[in-house]
Amino acid sequence: MKLYTSCDLAFEIPAPTPFVLMLRPRSGMQQWITREEYRLVPSVSVFEFTDNYGNLCQRLVAPRGIFTVYTSAEVMTADHVDQARGAPFVEVQKLPDAELSYLLPSRYCESDRFGQMATEITAGQRAGYDQVAAIAAWLRANILFAPGSSNIPVSAIEVNLKQSGVCRDFAHLGIALCRSLSIPARMVVGYLYQLDPMDLHAWFEAYVGGRWYTFDATQAELKGGYVVLGYGRDAADVAVYNQFGPAVHPTTQTVCVQRLKED
Amino acid sequence: MKLYTSCDLAFEIPAPTPFVLMLRPRSGMQQWITREEYRLVPSVSVFEFTDNYGNLCQRLVAPRGIFTVYTSAEVMTADHVDQARGAPFVEVQKLPDAELSYLLPSRYCESDRFGQMATEITAGQRAGYDQVAAIAAWLRANILFAPGSSNIPVSAIEVNLKQSGVCRDFAHLGIALCRSLSIPARMVVGYLYQLDPMDLHAWFEAYVGGRWYTFDATQAELKGGYVVLGYGRDAADVAVYNQFGPAVHPTTQTVCVQRLKED
Amino acid sequence: MKLYTSCDLAFEIPAPTPFVLMLRPRSGMQQWITREEYRLVPSVSVFEFTDNYGNLCQRLVAPRGIFTVYTSAEVMTADHVDQARGAPFVEVQKLPDAELSYLLPSRYCESDRFGQMATEITAGQRAGYDQVAAIAAWLRANILFAPGSSNIPVSAIEVNLKQSGVCRDFAHLGIALCRSLSIPARMVVGYLYQLDPMDLHAWFEAYVGGRWYTFDATQAELKGGYVVLGYGRDAADVAVYNQFGPAVHPTTQTVCVQRLKED
Amino acid sequence: MKLYTSCDLAFEIPAPTPFVLMLRPRSGMQQWITREEYRLVPSVSVFEFTDNYGNLCQRLVAPRGIFTVYTSAEVMTADHVDQARGAPFVEVQKLPDAELSYLLPSRYCESDRFGQMATEITAGQRAGYDQVAAIAAWLRANILFAPGSSNIPVSAIEVNLKQSGVCRDFAHLGIALCRSLSIPARMVVGYLYQLDPMDLHAWFEAYVGGRWYTFDATQAELKGGYVVLGYGRDAADVAVYNQFGPAVHPTTQTVCVQRLKED
Repeated sequence: MKLYTSCDLAFEIPAPTPFVLMLRPRSGMQQWITREEYRLVPSVSVFEFTDNYGNLCQRLVAPRGIFTVYTSAEVMTADHVDQARGAPFVEVQKLPDAELSYLLPSRYCESDRFGQMATEITAGQRAGYDQVAAIAAWLRANILFAPGSSNIPVSAIEVNLKQSGVCRDFAHLGIALCRSLSIPARMVVGYLYQLDPMDLHAWFEAYVGGRWYTFDATQAELKGGYVVLGYGRDAADVAVYNQFGPAVHPTTQTVCVQRLKED
Repeated sequence: MKLYTSCDLAFEIPAPTPFVLMLRPRSGMQQWITREEYRLVPSVSVFEFTDNYGNLCQRLVAPRGIFTVYTSAEVMTADHVDQARGAPFVEVQKLPDAELSYLLPSRYCESDRFGQMATEITAGQRAGYDQVAAIAAWLRANILFAPGSSNIPVSAIEVNLKQSGVCRDFAHLGIALCRSLSIPARMVVGYLYQLDPMDLHAWFEAYVGGRWYTFDATQAELKGGYVVLGYGRDAADVAVYNQFGPAVHPTTQTVCVQRLKED
Repeated sequence: MKLYTSCDLAFEIPAPTPFVLMLRPRSGMQQWITREEYRLVPSVSVFEFTDNYGNLCQRLVAPRGIFTVYTSAEVMTADHVDQARGAPFVEVQKLPDAELSYLLPSRYCESDRFGQMATEITAGQRAGYDQVAAIAAWLRANILFAPGSSNIPVSAIEVNLKQSGVCRDFAHLGIALCRSLSIPARMVVGYLYQLDPMDLHAWFEAYVGGRWYTFDATQAELKGGYVVLGYGRDAADVAVYNQFGPAVHPTTQTVCVQRLKED
Repeated sequence: MKLYTSCDLAFEIPAPTPFVLMLRPRSGMQQWITREEYRLVPSVSVFEFTDNYGNLCQRLVAPRGIFTVYTSAEVMTADHVDQARGAPFVEVQKLPDAELSYLLPSRYCESDRFGQMATEITAGQRAGYDQVAAIAAWLRANILFAPGSSNIPVSAIEVNLKQSGVCRDFAHLGIALCRSLSIPARMVVGYLYQLDPMDLHAWFEAYVGGRWYTFDATQAELKGGYVVLGYGRDAADVAVYNQFGPAVHPTTQTVCVQRLKED
């Protein structure tokens, strides 16, 4: 399907503040950007680079005052998310080199502490896709989805204690559980068509059966309409904005996703 | 200045043909893409990747029939090209690792055969920027600029024999001469505001005084208004379209560069 | 100085187990490997790759039974560790792209939770090297160095609660404190001449004044004789051995560092 | 098999000269380095980096006088070279991104000029491995192998005119012919057990059937015993030593390859 996505952020900046933004979706295996817009008001110098995960990142210094970022895109993305019951676990020694780093614990996914819990949740499942599906089902059944309930990221351990969280928290706990079973798992941030309430979204992918599959325990069923802004080990890697110095929060954050007629 | 650029290509494809395109400008140190469009008719699956030089490349298979590529962008770019008379030669042992590959001979820049000629052209110049400026001046004085005169790339040796060429040929000979003096030099393809006749353009950059500087011997004077589509060792690396199998040439290629009012 | 280093590990493997080792030191900016040996008994197939941080990593499957890894090297390394009182803080917008990832929180360095503590520890210091030196001094004065006291890595938050730790713990807390001040900091594992008791070692580096500097709060004074095996965000990235599946610990781990006469 | 390899180079340096060496074999998919030695007399500072092709490169400035490089290694390598009659051509759109650059023409492999010749040589062959085998057979039948006959690299076009050449020339012409058929091909330099006369060696690899295969038209039959020092597009990328400034040639170059008893 073809989607129009936009994200507008406004900040009130008390003193010149360095930012790293991750708001330009990349064309790749999963999506094709046919149109894109990226406007900063006031206009400032921006340097774009590609990070270790292949994300396009924008560096700038926001000047004092109101600083607004307008981004939008038109994106071709899949109508349906691939699912693959029975797709097998990939033995660690057969993983591509590049996926190995997604086995390691990271800031918000302390996978080194979840071995026993993951084993219990996935008891009786075939190793691979079915284990991840069991983890996603467990998350959906046991963690209360409370959009908007948290501002600062908390880690999988903390989410598991609270038993409730935002989309990012679901992803962190899902990733930690997967990695503890030696299944590579990564965080994805971006947009989802018909997300309710509409906002930026986070979900996760797991590497089984020789490729990455999408999982999203916040949704009753996996539908298409995902647009990726960035991949990483966890929220620390894929902040849509990373700001340095005294904390500055957006005064407004407006996200929109609409379906477009295809040519 | 803010520029609108567009390049539309149409091909008549006799049989399904793999293509690699390099038509999406990247934001980076030198330019900021505020709006961008990339449309294929008919629509086909595209996979985008980043090559060794940091360029965004689009892979696809063009189907039988008329295949059209429409790309456009709005780009903030410098009003003036930096020039730096006297900027010193960087000793090879002090070059960043990444620039070393721009010292090596490449397909169309046989720098291993130009040592003596480069030494003669730059006699009496301070090592560094002034040598490159002397090379550009020599090209301008000695090679006849004949836009549209060549379709298949020829190499620096061939250009030097013919003593005439298109923009790409000027760049190849300039690069070969620089590298033979141990000055890293690279090919750039893209757009130039007010290029006459308007078309895609090629020029070169040389690394002196600790950074890359723009040189363009096809122009009487260096003005601003450059928009980069790709960097590489020579034309082999930065073909705007690379097509595999029996040769297919565009039936139309329309390039447009216009100045926009800034916000 | 020229050092001989060796690390021998023996494991008792109950079932074939995938490993990723990081035991081959790399020549680079800081050290030159003149001789090196890497022997596995029994001999198995090994695939070596370079990770995101430039470390050489060895992938293999250890067979059932006793599995032994013998590594040794002869390394030229600096006699003295560079120190630079007053070296200035590098503003985030001026950091090289590659160093930005060392500002982010990571598994064992929850820098997002240490802002106030770091500000207190470094009160009155010039921004940059002196802040890091104050952090190292604080660690040395306040955290009890207890080599051999911990087997599984704990995080900076946990170390700060315990107020004691091994070399890895000192590094994690130091890194978390630096990053919370927007100073890039990274973990280093390797060897240290005259470390007492001799073992593999961990320390950290901070990026100030335009380069990386070595800090090691476990030592009364910074001397030369460091040999690097790997760099990373924290212990999760630079495990000398990473093993997948049911935990297997070395039955013996013998580390040796000796000074050699130079040619 | 287990091999001992060594390469000793001595230069008479008239003035301090920057060098980039490529004399440290890397462990990887095809070989495992169990012991290695790299000695410079006189000892100088060396910085090692990894180039775009994954090769370890050593940068240094050779001082005035006699400068000697001693390198040796013990390497586990395959007893037999894999061959795969019938392995199919990989359509360009299915090639991994990383292999695409090995389709492009390069300094010594002007593949853009060999389409017709390659088509004739491979007439009647199944697309893929068999085409490359036909190219190798053609080279062996038609180009006179004249070891030691050339010092400066010449290109595939020149080799084809001369109809004779050294191992490097065979590789260049083979690569150019493969690429003109849209088969990725790359240059390899290293050692070969029982090469006669013993010297450094060059051969090529072609990507068919989903992996790289070794071809060496200088040898009557493909046997095992290859040790790789570097991969690249052609000789420009994989010079065992690259020296900048006035040309300096080794006064002695001693290469040795011996079989070792395995443990």
